[in-house]
This record gives sequence, structure tokens and C-alpha cells, in this order.
Amino acid sequence: MSSNVRIALDAMGGDNAPDIVIAGASIARKRHPYLNLSFIGETRKLKALIKKYKNLSDAKIIHADETVASDARPAQALRHGKKTSMWLAVNEVAMENADAIVSAGNTGALMAISKLQLRMISGVTRPAIAGFIPTLKGLCCMLDLGANIEVDEKNLVQFGIMGASFCSAITGKKRASVGILNVGEEDQKGFDYLRRAGTSLSNKTLNLNYVGFIEGSDIIKGNTDVIVTDGFTGNIALKTAEGTAKFFMYHLRQTFRSSIFSRIGFLLSRNAFMKMRRTIDPRYYNGAILLGLNGVCVKSHGGTDSVGFSNAIEVACDLVKHEFIPNVNESISAAEQVIQSKAD
Amino acid sequence: MSSNVRIALDAMGGDNAPDIVIAGASIARKRHPYLNLSFIGETRKLKALIKKYKNLSDAKIIHADETVASDARPAQALRHGKKTSMWLAVNEVAMENADAIVSAGNTGALMAISKLQLRMISGVTRPAIAGFIPTLKGLCCMLDLGANIEVDEKNLVQFGIMGASFCSAITGKKRASVGILNVGEEDQKGFDYLRRAGTSLSNKTLNLNYVGFIEGSDIIKGNTDVIVTDGFTGNIALKTAEGTAKFFMYHLRQTFRSSIFSRIGFLLSRNAFMKMRRTIDPRYYNGAILLGLNGVCVKSHGGTDSVGFSNAIEVACDLVKHEFIPNVNESISAAEQVIQSKAD
Repeated sequence: MSSNVRIALDAMGGDNAPDIVIAGASIARKRHPYLNLSFIGETRKLKALIKKYKNLSDAKIIHADETVASDARPAQALRHGKKTSMWLAVNEVAMENADAIVSAGNTGALMAISKLQLRMISGVTRPAIAGFIPTLKGLCCMLDLGANIEVDEKNLVQFGIMGASFCSAITGKKRASVGILNVGEEDQKGFDYLRRAGTSLSNKTLNLNYVGFIEGSDIIKGNTDVIVTDGFTGNIALKTAEGTAKFFMYHLRQTFRSSIFSRIGFLLSRNAFMKMRRTIDPRYYNGAILLGLNGVCVKSHGGTDSVGFSNAIEVACDLVKHEFIPNVNESISAAEQVIQSKAD
Repeated sequence: MSSNVRIALDAMGGDNAPDIVIAGASIARKRHPYLNLSFIGETRKLKALIKKYKNLSDAKIIHADETVASDARPAQALRHGKKTSMWLAVNEVAMENADAIVSAGNTGALMAISKLQLRMISGVTRPAIAGFIPTLKGLCCMLDLGANIEVDEKNLVQFGIMGASFCSAITGKKRASVGILNVGEEDQKGFDYLRRAGTSLSNKTLNLNYVGFIEGSDIIKGNTDVIVTDGFTGNIALKTAEGTAKFFMYHLRQTFRSSIFSRIGFLLSRNAFMKMRRTIDPRYYNGAILLGLNGVCVKSHGGTDSVGFSNAIEVACDLVKHEFIPNVNESISAAEQVIQSKAD
């Protein structure tokens, strides 16, 4: 399988497209020469850019006249978007010309277009956006990051199952631990549907490593591999963490600039700081998956650069290599049977 | 009024009580000699501790045999807690022997006991926990931080009105700006009740400085003085920010320890780092108010130290000095009239 992973790239999606898409693809190809890439977008622009990268000379270009606007509503993209680069890139996966699609474009539109073309995994009622954040002990997978502002017990259970598969495919960890985000660790805290989801996730027949409720302050400790929540809370938690990280970086810069001594101090500590920066650099965690779709669809941050986009391509590549879609289909189907047999 | 602010302290509440309560009171008294303090707790323990601080020699002690356990449920504290230091401290405000109460004890119990004894401000349907966090432009007041896991439109509007009064009393800022936490700034994002609350908050007759929806990543920018949300999201956002801050401090320490050069670098930058640490030190933001009660009730973090506890006492003191309770009663009553006249 790894000899030929075929990835369709929405070359026109995101704030800095198509430049960073092409440059990011070149970086990814350097690391994974077996990648078979196709760029979907304005042929003339793409040809001119691709010329600059020797290792992309064999890449395929599929022409698209239009681009989904960053502020387009999902319904609008569905109705009028059939000629857009995003639509045609997803179509490559639907037509089995590609194994995965990566886009840095409008998230709502990508979800709507992919749901229509790739359809959902059988039994999954709601898709979710899942991504990784750095913790003190490595990576933590969080979902939903914004696909559904409201969820129910069954959605959360499915998020747990799919999140564990996703985490294992990317980190290589077997039996990833799963927790539910809540306002306290105690059983009586939070909403009833969280308690019911907890009971289901700890059902032994599901064979999950469920660890209970997780508080906001515990996310970063890294004791839990997969944290599930509704898309409203998940989106706000993720963005609050991003905001706090920027706040720190700002203060750090100000601190080092504040006197001649601290400037010299920075020069002496520079190497160590570069390492720290690498650990917390959001570009290295770029690439969220639209989970629940019957195909690999990876969403890159819209404002990322070529390094960040190359990371999103690698996420897609890892998922294809680890046969993520067949695996997650199997897990969901097994869980459905458990739930069904309980109901009978 | 400032010649004599009377504050009742639950001397037994919190992880490090009564030591840090007494030590914190001494710090606060140094800054505000006009504070009239009473300690509620085990007389023998308190007397022995108070002896150590000359500036507390005139403090009053009110004996309490019992302490509310940190894991007690609110209903349990209400039914069996009448002899606890928390109950008797709140009672001092209810009996008008004190102008405010400060406790580092169990939050749920403090809310339940205070609701019963101090009652709610007329017209307020739900109380909220409101606290301050540091931002790039100063302090930001966030509420609800965990009193209600669900809220409705009316609750959010009242949180906005009360939060603006609270913020003005503490920061001195007139016409504090108010925003609603949401998953996007655009009008169509999030829940319907958020949109309805936004429409009400922007009603000119309420005379508020409403600025619209705020994303998680924008909290820390400091462009909005007061951010309202439900207690589930608020609690998770606050704790996620706290966790991220700890993550950074950990990496910073590791970075400076990683080589002899970075150790020397730290020594050279030390003064600047001490300043940065002061800016982000949670002790200086300690002291959340239980908003909506008809009396000043300040909750200190349970794990804080004497410096943190002294800050919570200062929050209580500022609110009394600025006649917060009469002011917020007036604002809520005016808002009720607006809503009533709309309904007629």
C-alpha cells in the first residue's frame, strides 16, 4: 500500500493558496517519495508554481474554474459549488481516483461537500472534526472541534470509538485511552447525557480503554489520548488554548527585549528556546480529520504555511497507510452490534 | 464607607486553612488598615495563629465547631451545615454584622448556603460565578465559570448587566464592553439563544456597551472587558487556559535547565522573567464573586496561598467600597422594567 498513496489536493483552499499548497506538497514528497499527488485548481497558476519544484514534475493537475469562498455557507457551496476546486478534489476520492483529499478551505463547505460525495460510515449519525494538540506527554486527540454544536450520548460514544482508531493510526499507540470532557471528574458532575455516554464507553464488549471524565485543566497533562466533547465546547477549548499560547509567546518576546541583559540571556538560551518553540509550534499539529465520513478527508488550518500544509498531507498519508477507513468501519459495525444486542 | 469595611472570613475553608486565611488577612490589612475583620472557625486554632500577626490583634473570632468538607454536596451542606464556619461566616452578612464574606471552601456549598441566607437580587433568575483573567490589554471578566451548566437568553442578559457592574467596580472602567462567547464572530454561528441574548444586550435602552460574539482565541486579546457564557463552557475555557499556562511554565523551566548556556541565560534575564511571572501569576487574579446574590460573597481558589487569599479579600473590599450591591440592584431593576415594557 505504501508504495503508492494517492492524494488529491484542493490547491485553491485557504488564505495563502495555491502557493503554500504546492510548496507544502513538495516538502511532503521529499519525505515520502511514493506520494502520488494531484492538484485541483486553476491550471495556469498551478503550472507556473509547480515548475519551481523539481520533485513535483510528475504531479497531475485537474482544472477547476472556481474556488469556494472562505465565508460561503455550506448550503450555498453545495448548491453552486460543483465547479470549485474543493468539490472536484473530493470527487477524486469519491471516484476512487485518490485515497484521500486535503483542503485548507472553508470547513463547513468541506464537511457538506464531503458528506454528500463520500457519504457517512454506516451507522455513524454525526461526523466530527478531530485534531491533535501537544501535551506534557505527547499528542492528545480532541473531538469534536466544531462540526456539531450539540451532540447526544450516541454521538459521543461513536466519537470515542472513531477517535481511538484515529489516534492509534497517527501515534501508533494501541488501546488509546478515551475520556469525556466535563466540569469535574466526579460522576455526578455535568449533563446526564455525559454520564450515559460514560456508561456506554466503559461497556467491556466495546473493548475501549475508557478512563472517565476529564477537566479542562487536565487536557494538557497528557494522561488521556482521546478527549471527546460537543463541537461548541471543543471549539472554544481549542481556541482558548491557542489564544493562551499566543499570550505566552508575546510575553516571552517582551521579556527578552526588555533589557540588554535579557537580550544577552536570550542569545545564550537560544538553542533551547528553538527546541521549545518546535514542541509548541501549531504547524506541526496541523491536519484535522473529518471523522465519520466514508473516506479520508483532512482539513488544514486556513492560515497555515507550507510546513503546516505538508503536515496535513502526512496525516492523510498515515491514515491511508494504516487502512484507517476499513478499520474504523469495522469498529463502528462491531459497536452497533453490541448496542443492537443490548436493545434486543 | 472606606473608613470601615467589615469582612467575615471563613477561616476553615480551602486546602491550606486556617493558616493562609490568617496570613492573607494580615497582608490585606497592611494595605487597607481600615478593614474590620472577623474570623469564623475553631477558636483555639485561630487564636494561636492570630497571635503571630500584630496587625490582627483587634480581629474578632466567631467560634464554629465544624467545617464543610471539600467534597460535600450542596444539599448535604444545606441540611447539615448550620454549625460550619462557612454557614456562620455567610450568616454575618445576612445579619448585617459584615459587609462581605470571603471563603476558599467548597464552591457548590458556598453558593447554596449563600443563596439561602443572602437571597437573590430581585429579578435575577440564576446566580453566576464571575472572575478575572489576564489579557494582553489588562483584565477580562468572565462568567459563568461553573454555577449553571445550562443557561437561557435571560440568564445571559443578566450576566452581561451584572458582569459590567462587577468589572467597573474592580477596574474602574466606565461602560465596560460586553461580549458573548461563541464558536465564531458571524451572526449565524452557534445556538439560537445566543443570538437572542445578543439582540437583547444590544437594545439601546439597556445602555450597555455590547460588542457581539467573541471566539475562544479572542479572549486573551483583551478587546472585550466582560465575556458571558454558560457555566459548562466557561468552566472548561478557564481551566483549559490555566492548563495551557502551566504547560508553558513547565517548558520554560525545562528550557532554562537544558544546558549551562541556558542557565546563564536565565540568570541574565531573571529580573525580566520575574516581571513576566507577576503578570501571569494566578494569585493576583484570585477572588471570584458569586454574582446575583443580594450580598457580597467572594470565593477564593481552594489551593491558593496567603498572597492569593489577600487578593480575594481585596476584591470583596473593592466591591463594598464601590457600593456594588445597590448599584447592581438598580441596573437589574431598570433592565426588568425595559423587558416588562417590551412585553406590555
